[in-house]
Amino acid sequence: MNNVTFISPVQTQLQLVEARLQSQADDRHPDLRAALGQILAAGGKRIRPTLTLLVGNMLGAPENKLVTLGAALELLHTATLVHDDLIDGSLLRRGMPTLNARWSPAATVLTGDFLFARAAKLAADTNYLPLMKLFAETLAVIVNGELTQMFSARGMIDRENYAQRIYAKTASLFEMASRAAAMISPANEETIESMRKFGYETGMAFQIVDDILDFTGEQSTVGKPVGSDLLNGLVTLPAIYYAEACPEDEDVKSLVDGGWGNQERMQRLVQSIRRTDAVKNAMEEARGHASRALQLLGAHDPSPEREGLENLVNYIVDRNV
Amino acid sequence: MNNVTFISPVQTQLQLVEARLQSQADDRHPDLRAALGQILAAGGKRIRPTLTLLVGNMLGAPENKLVTLGAALELLHTATLVHDDLIDGSLLRRGMPTLNARWSPAATVLTGDFLFARAAKLAADTNYLPLMKLFAETLAVIVNGELTQMFSARGMIDRENYAQRIYAKTASLFEMASRAAAMISPANEETIESMRKFGYETGMAFQIVDDILDFTGEQSTVGKPVGSDLLNGLVTLPAIYYAEACPEDEDVKSLVDGGWGNQERMQRLVQSIRRTDAVKNAMEEARGHASRALQLLGAHDPSPEREGLENLVNYIVDRNV
Repeated sequence: MNNVTFISPVQTQLQLVEARLQSQADDRHPDLRAALGQILAAGGKRIRPTLTLLVGNMLGAPENKLVTLGAALELLHTATLVHDDLIDGSLLRRGMPTLNARWSPAATVLTGDFLFARAAKLAADTNYLPLMKLFAETLAVIVNGELTQMFSARGMIDRENYAQRIYAKTASLFEMASRAAAMISPANEETIESMRKFGYETGMAFQIVDDILDFTGEQSTVGKPVGSDLLNGLVTLPAIYYAEACPEDEDVKSLVDGGWGNQERMQRLVQSIRRTDAVKNAMEEARGHASRALQLLGAHDPSPEREGLENLVNYIVDRNV
Repeated sequence: MNNVTFISPVQTQLQLVEARLQSQADDRHPDLRAALGQILAAGGKRIRPTLTLLVGNMLGAPENKLVTLGAALELLHTATLVHDDLIDGSLLRRGMPTLNARWSPAATVLTGDFLFARAAKLAADTNYLPLMKLFAETLAVIVNGELTQMFSARGMIDRENYAQRIYAKTASLFEMASRAAAMISPANEETIESMRKFGYETGMAFQIVDDILDFTGEQSTVGKPVGSDLLNGLVTLPAIYYAEACPEDEDVKSLVDGGWGNQERMQRLVQSIRRTDAVKNAMEEARGHASRALQLLGAHDPSPEREGLENLVNYIVDRNV
């Protein structure tokens, strides 16, 4: 699987998004500029802007609004990551030291706030009220999800809670990326709703695979220690499948009473999960989301953008698993 | 001076704002609900919503939008306070323990983010794009100001820096409160601009007086230790006047080299500043802003709202000095 196949139809526009991202910190704050440079350089594959550009181009959205929207999405995403790392106390993200590991909490909070403010400004620059409202709503969903996660008991084995959590954490922004691109296109309500669903299914698949990689990936690829979700008391889909299959496993039973805090236990549990069908079952669920996403694309005429979206969805379920 | 004279024309609407504020946290997060209850209960005089309601009523703005705007302003203000307390490490605000003093940094960051999200949502609920844009711009000004403050050298005696700082910290939101109320009214551009200036002048006066109270107030009234700005390396207007009058004072000269970190020195400097005309001169400057604000009101026919605004401005410069 070639990583860049989904990027090629929007390569030039992605560079415009990149330039917009890099221009956010002006020269008044050299330290902030350096920090943002670092955060953005560690910034992964720009999947959210790519999604928005592909959908928007497929539907004929104006380029300037699309680029602005793409930058707004990536900044909002980055803002939540910066605050997340502070909240989790994470020292690594994507294998790089986090801002949190090198700066004071004060600087980290403010950098996140700065990114929120810039994201809101970019969303406003699209000059389209429904998009601003969607932006505010999505921000609320994301923050609410983080609050729920913080206030929820750790070690809880709960499918519904898991689905809500990954929706808030990831799928809500994918949903916005796809839906907002359709909203600024000459598309009808039905198409907008179908693109909303497309973003939702793609985002759910993305996060499930991310959660699988926490069990099957190598630290060097995933950029954080294997099993870190369990060690933080977060029971994700592979662990849920395992718990459903082996409810009497002592390590599973320990979760609800704080067993997730026991490193030895959790390492053993990770191995147990890897030995069974739990990962395969979780992967099936991710593929279910992906295939529903692909089905929604079927309504559109073949085009490089549609093909790009198909490649994007396939990439999401096929990467490094 | 009766504190409530400026509130009376909008008392009923302020209760609607209050209800809107209290309804922000739903029952899904009892801990958050309790925390917000505490933050909002410690919430001072609601000067920003009052300002917006008075201006909007004077100019004939629709009540529902005004109330929504008032709640958005207060939530944005509260969000910045929550993050500020974390950034400063403050344990007291308005004499009450801060969220930061009782919660983890994680909970404090998220509660601030939650309030930002709710504020953005309320701003969007006004269904008025220029207001959303103004909201995003004001947020950017506030956060930029905090970043500048964090990255600036402490102990700097600089009028221009001071003016920018208090604009970003306080006057920008007063400006928005007054301007946005005019924007949603049937007012012409000239009136909107005049109300923007009114908010600006009022906000500048407010912050200068706040900074004076840091020298002249009692801890019990101000809610934080006297001289705390200096001890944080923040040189405010009274100290700037004193430094201009007595540049050879050893304590003044020490500021640039970190003397602000010396509690004994700073206590002596506070006493020196109190003994001279520095406070009086700073107060004159606050009165200058207030009188320009009052002059702008002269263009409007007498009304209970205009009188309310006059009382508000007078209250701001007369409180507890």
